[in-house]
Amino acid sequence: MTTSPAPSTPSLDALDADPAFALHRGGKLEVRSSVPVRDADDLSLAYTPGVARVCSAIADTPALAADYTWVSRVVAVVSDGTAVLGLGDIGPAAAMPVMEGKALLFKEFAGVDAVPICLDCTGVEELVETVARLAPSFGGINLEDISAPRCFEVEDRLRERLDIPVFHDDQHGTAIVVLAALQNAARLTGRSLGDLRAVVAGAGASGVAVTRILLNAGIGDIAVADSKGLIHEGRAGLNSVKTALAADTNRAGLRGTTEDALAGADVFIGLSGSTVAEQSIATMAADSIVFALSNPTPEVHPDAARRHARVVATGRSDFPNQINNVLAFPGVFRGALDVRAGTITENMKVAAADALAAVVGDALSADYVIPSPFDKRVAPAVTAAVATQARHDGVARA
Amino acid sequence: MTTSPAPSTPSLDALDADPAFALHRGGKLEVRSSVPVRDADDLSLAYTPGVARVCSAIADTPALAADYTWVSRVVAVVSDGTAVLGLGDIGPAAAMPVMEGKALLFKEFAGVDAVPICLDCTGVEELVETVARLAPSFGGINLEDISAPRCFEVEDRLRERLDIPVFHDDQHGTAIVVLAALQNAARLTGRSLGDLRAVVAGAGASGVAVTRILLNAGIGDIAVADSKGLIHEGRAGLNSVKTALAADTNRAGLRGTTEDALAGADVFIGLSGSTVAEQSIATMAADSIVFALSNPTPEVHPDAARRHARVVATGRSDFPNQINNVLAFPGVFRGALDVRAGTITENMKVAAADALAAVVGDALSADYVIPSPFDKRVAPAVTAAVATQARHDGVARA
Repeated sequence: MTTSPAPSTPSLDALDADPAFALHRGGKLEVRSSVPVRDADDLSLAYTPGVARVCSAIADTPALAADYTWVSRVVAVVSDGTAVLGLGDIGPAAAMPVMEGKALLFKEFAGVDAVPICLDCTGVEELVETVARLAPSFGGINLEDISAPRCFEVEDRLRERLDIPVFHDDQHGTAIVVLAALQNAARLTGRSLGDLRAVVAGAGASGVAVTRILLNAGIGDIAVADSKGLIHEGRAGLNSVKTALAADTNRAGLRGTTEDALAGADVFIGLSGSTVAEQSIATMAADSIVFALSNPTPEVHPDAARRHARVVATGRSDFPNQINNVLAFPGVFRGALDVRAGTITENMKVAAADALAAVVGDALSADYVIPSPFDKRVAPAVTAAVATQARHDGVARA
Repeated sequence: MTTSPAPSTPSLDALDADPAFALHRGGKLEVRSSVPVRDADDLSLAYTPGVARVCSAIADTPALAADYTWVSRVVAVVSDGTAVLGLGDIGPAAAMPVMEGKALLFKEFAGVDAVPICLDCTGVEELVETVARLAPSFGGINLEDISAPRCFEVEDRLRERLDIPVFHDDQHGTAIVVLAALQNAARLTGRSLGDLRAVVAGAGASGVAVTRILLNAGIGDIAVADSKGLIHEGRAGLNSVKTALAADTNRAGLRGTTEDALAGADVFIGLSGSTVAEQSIATMAADSIVFALSNPTPEVHPDAARRHARVVATGRSDFPNQINNVLAFPGVFRGALDVRAGTITENMKVAAADALAAVVGDALSADYVIPSPFDKRVAPAVTAAVATQARHDGVARA
C-alpha cells in the first residue's frame, strides 16, 4: 500500500498561467498620498506640528472633518464573505479579491476612493457593531456579499444608526439596474410598468430588493419564488422578510413553482441560480421580457429565451443587455458623496434607475435596453441624478 | 439686552490661510487601482467571472491570499483617538488627520500601503475584538495614539491573537529611535549602555516602552517618574504596568521627583509633557545625555540643556538630533511585510535600532547621533535588518 502525497500548495507559476491569476498577483489596489512630502517643511504641515491645528479644529467643529480629511470621499466595501458571487460562504480571506475588485471599479468608473474590508465575524450584532465602530473613518458603507436574510437586518440597523450612506449593493445595485432595463423594455413594447405581471425567481438579497423596487415603481403584480416554490400568504415557515413579501406580492395567490407562474406572465426575472425550461418561457404572454441574471449560467440560455421573448437580458458580457451592478453603484456613491448625503433614499435609487434608463434614449431596441458598463455617459448621469434627488429629499449636507 | 450670535462654523477660506489647513483640504490620501480596467476583457479578469477562480483558490489554500490580494502589503493604522499627539482624547473623527498622515508617511518613506482606521469605541475588549475582526483585510496593524494603560493590554492581546504584526508605534517606534540615538551617544562618549544610569520622565506608552527596550539592551539602571514622582517598589496605587516597572527599575530605590533623580545621572529622557529646570540638568554627571522629547515644547530648552550636557536631542525638526518615529515604523513594517513575518519580535526592534544607529557611522558627533528623517539610507537599512532578524527568529513566512 502506498501513501498518498501530502496536499501541496499550488505553484504560483502554474496558477499564473491563468491570466486572471496573473492579473491578481500582488493585489489590485494601492494607497497613494495626494500631497507632497519632499522635505521637513512639507512634513511639518502634513504631520506634526501642523496636523495638530487641523485636529484641534475638527475637535472643536466636527463638520470640518468632511473638508480636511479624506473621510468624506472614501467608501468601505464591507463583506463577511458569506455569499460571494456564486461561490457561497468562502470566508473573509477568500472574499478579498472580489472586494478589491469592487474598490477598483469604484475608482475606475466614478473616481470614488474605496477600501476593501473583509470581516472575521458573521453574527448580525457583531457585523452591525463592527461597522458602526469603523464608521468615523468612512463617508459611506457599501455592504457586499453578505448572505440573506442577515443582510437585510444588518443594512436596516446600520442605516438607522449611521449618518452616512449604507448601501447593500447585492440588493440595491441590482434593483436599480433591473428597474432601468425593465422600464426600457416596457417602453419598447409600448407598456407601462403597471401593465406588467412579473415572476421573480429567488428571494435572497437581490430577489427581495428587485421585488421591492418594482413594487414601489408600480408594477402590476409580482410572484416571487424561493427554493421551495412560490411565496404566498399562509405558506408555513416563512421568515419575517418573506412573510412581508407574501403580504405585498402574488395577488393571484399562485402556488407551485416558478415555471407554473410563468404561464401568461409578462416578465421573468431570474436571481436564483436555478434553471427554467425553454418550454416554460414559451408559455409566457406575447412580448415577454426575460431577465435571466444568474451568473455564469443564466436560468435559461439567452438564445433559447430569445426564441420566445421580445427582450432578453443576462448578467453576461458576451450577450446583449448585460445587467451589471457597475452601472449603478459607482455613480450612486459618487452622487451621494458629492453632496454629503446622510443616507441613500428610495427616491435616490429610483432617480439612479431613471437616469440609467435615459442613457439609452432613442437608440432603444430589443438588444439595447440597458447601456454598456463602459458607456462613459453612465456614471455622470447617475451621479447627477442621485445628487439632485438627495437635495430634493433634504438629505444633502453640502 | 442683546443675544450673542450663534456659534458659526469657521470659514474654510479663513482656515486655509494656514498652510497646514490648505494642505489638508480634501484629505491626504487616495486609493488607486494597480491593474488596468480598459474594457470588458480586463473587467472579466479583475472582476467577474475571472475573480471567482482566484477566490476559489484562496478558499482551498488560504496562504494564497498573500500572493493574490493586496492584504499582505497593506497596514491598518488604527486609533481610538484617545491620546492624539499632545492633544489628548479628541475622539476618532479629530484623530483622522494624524492617521492619514501616518499612512502617508508609510507610503512615502517605505512604499507601504496603509489605511487609516479611526474607531468609535474605547474599551479594551471592544478595541481588541474590532481589530481582530478587521484583521483578515490587513498584513499588519499599527496601533496609534491609544492612551495608556489601555494601549498595553490592547497590544498584548492582539499580538497573542493575530498571526500578523501588531505594533503600537507610540511605544515601540519611539523606543527604537531612542535606543539608536542612545547607543550612538554612548559611543561618542566612550561608554557602553551598561555604564549609564538613566532617568525617564513619563510612564505612558512611550516611557514604558523606552524603559523596556533600554533594560533589554542592558542599561545600567533606570529610574522612571510619572506625574506623581519616581516609581519605586512599594509606592501605593501603582497599576499593573507600573508595578512591573517598579520591580525592574530604580535599583537605588530613589524617591521624589524627576529632578531629584537627575543628580549624578548620565541620561535624561523626557517623554512626559512636563518641564525640567536647567539647574537640574546641571546636576547630572559629566558627559550627560539629554533627550527632551516632548513636542512641541521639550522638557528643557535644547539651548539650555546644551550648556551642561554633551549630547542633546529633541522631537523638533529645528534642532539637531531629531528623535522622530518616522525613522523606524516605515522600515519596520516594510521589513516585516517583505518576509511575511507573523509578528514583530523584540529582536527585530533591536535590529532596527542597531541598523538606524549604524547609518550615522563615522560621521558621529554631538549634533549627529541620529540620522535625518529624510536620509534615504534609513528605511532600506531598517527594512533589511528587520527582515533578516525575522528570518533568524523563525517568524518569517516568505
